[in-house]
Amino acid sequence: MLEPTLNVQAIVFDVFGTVVDWRGSIARDLGAWGPGQHLQADWLRLADLWRARYQPQMERVRSGEIAFRKLDELHDECLDELLPMLGLHDVTPAQRAHINRVWHRLDPWPDSVAGLTRMKRRYFIAPLSNGNISLLADMARRAGLPWDHIFSAETFQRYKPHPDTYLGVARQLDLPPSQVMMVAAHNGDLRAARGCGLRTGFIPRTTEYGPAQSTDLHAEEAWDVVATDLEDLAARIGT
Amino acid sequence: MLEPTLNVQAIVFDVFGTVVDWRGSIARDLGAWGPGQHLQADWLRLADLWRARYQPQMERVRSGEIAFRKLDELHDECLDELLPMLGLHDVTPAQRAHINRVWHRLDPWPDSVAGLTRMKRRYFIAPLSNGNISLLADMARRAGLPWDHIFSAETFQRYKPHPDTYLGVARQLDLPPSQVMMVAAHNGDLRAARGCGLRTGFIPRTTEYGPAQSTDLHAEEAWDVVATDLEDLAARIGT
Repeated sequence: MLEPTLNVQAIVFDVFGTVVDWRGSIARDLGAWGPGQHLQADWLRLADLWRARYQPQMERVRSGEIAFRKLDELHDECLDELLPMLGLHDVTPAQRAHINRVWHRLDPWPDSVAGLTRMKRRYFIAPLSNGNISLLADMARRAGLPWDHIFSAETFQRYKPHPDTYLGVARQLDLPPSQVMMVAAHNGDLRAARGCGLRTGFIPRTTEYGPAQSTDLHAEEAWDVVATDLEDLAARIGT
Repeated sequence: MLEPTLNVQAIVFDVFGTVVDWRGSIARDLGAWGPGQHLQADWLRLADLWRARYQPQMERVRSGEIAFRKLDELHDECLDELLPMLGLHDVTPAQRAHINRVWHRLDPWPDSVAGLTRMKRRYFIAPLSNGNISLLADMARRAGLPWDHIFSAETFQRYKPHPDTYLGVARQLDLPPSQVMMVAAHNGDLRAARGCGLRTGFIPRTTEYGPAQSTDLHAEEAWDVVATDLEDLAARIGT
């Protein structure tokens, strides 16, 4: 049970890695689709290379080098380089669009829907993700994520960990930051959220980046709640 | 059933009057609460006078006379004048806040939750309301409105019927306007939505303003769907 003094009203969740398994999903989805399109590639490698470009791409926005643009667009820009690297030289525009939208079709981890459903009973729940709104909307519909609302970097025209994202949630919900909890499998996201006065909940996702993952294997600070997964988190906060 | 050519993916709903009964709710809520606070007033009259100031207040924002501010704030500004008019001279700040937040506690019409639940099965559903986000969030949690997301004037920093609101929904959902349907009990809202290329659905709420209501008693144009209430609308679009 959360200490009564926490008094959290709303919980926002990181999505990529925390709620959904982007790496496994991309490999499964495109691995099942590719052969029928006569497209063969190491799709796990595509997932890894794509994700490796995620922070540098957003950094171009954060630094002001380029204006804010949706994650769908940043993802698509990466494909200019990645498709040839993967040996995918004859991809039609429709195939490229299907590949880019794989991020809309990610599967949740096995505990995600059950855990969120429990937390929704008592708390207002929403993603706070760098994914764009339509990406998160499509994902939620397909995967059955029972969000009350969608908060996105697009909402605030800033990518996490910019304070405008965490504080924007509190402002739009008309809550003090201390009544909002950020849940993530990434210590850095929680450090930024805590810096803005939010409560923090950590769950490890030790295979998000594959079996050799070496980061975010455990809580690196005394976060307000530390749980093994989203169902355990739901139990620890009394839902 | 919608004509297949309509191909709507998302449906957005006007809220005050269309989904919830603001007039009856205000009278019931404050009528039950007032006596325990030693506050007596004609609460139906408060509801009517408050709502009469709604469009003029928003017009001050639309015209640029004042910067965008949330509906909660516009509502509160009205109380400076309305409380004395109603004979409420000794209202504490906490009582005034409770009165102002009655807009967060409005009850749905009897068909609203069932109709929305049916439509949610097949469509992405959200409010598109001039109410602020926290107002709509509180209302949804309390009334069980099963939104997938919340679109508000606050989202776009513009009040309906500004085109930025209707077009902003389509843009954020990454849909052509023709794949979004606006549902309202107000012909004017639908005219503005149609002007932006959205599909339109009308339901009458002939007692929204009380038994003597003379406006919006029926569809004034050939809207894409015309239904008797939200359950009937759900049936007419095949859900």
